[in-house]
Amino acid sequence: MAGKAKHRVKVTINGEEYFIKGSMPPEHIKMIADYVDQKMSKLAEMNPYLSTSKVAVLAALNITDELFKITQEYEEFLKLLEEVKD
Amino acid sequence: MAGKAKHRVKVTINGEEYFIKGSMPPEHIKMIADYVDQKMSKLAEMNPYLSTSKVAVLAALNITDELFKITQEYEEFLKLLEEVKD
Repeated sequence: MAGKAKHRVKVTINGEEYFIKGSMPPEHIKMIADYVDQKMSKLAEMNPYLSTSKVAVLAALNITDELFKITQEYEEFLKLLEEVKD
Repeated sequence: MAGKAKHRVKVTINGEEYFIKGSMPPEHIKMIADYVDQKMSKLAEMNPYLSTSKVAVLAALNITDELFKITQEYEEFLKLLEEVKD
């Protein structure tokens, strides 16, 4: 395992600055922040009267939907492989 | 394809009520909302001085990290299968 150096990365999400601490490489933290920023910006554009907090919750719901979908697809694929193997 | 009936589901996330509209089954919408609620509650507990908006952004970052990890794992697995096939 590589060392667990902590990085502190400044990112901008939906116009606000955040300092994110983590042991991941700074580029990875930035990539994650960019993804959330894009989701939130799109949602804020589509719903201009929503508060930042609601936009962030909507973004989290959206991303969770994607997470559940890919997890289910992956699990079904693994199950299929198991059946082919038997 | 099944009909695209829109459901309107009331969910509670981090103590606040939201009405979520979507063509997904209500149970699926609730499952997604529960996931975000749990993430936000844990983060709010760990960081009692953070605003709801920051807690929601942190939750979105956290879930994106999970999404990226599973996507990468799935892609690497598919690549490995391709190599075995050749």
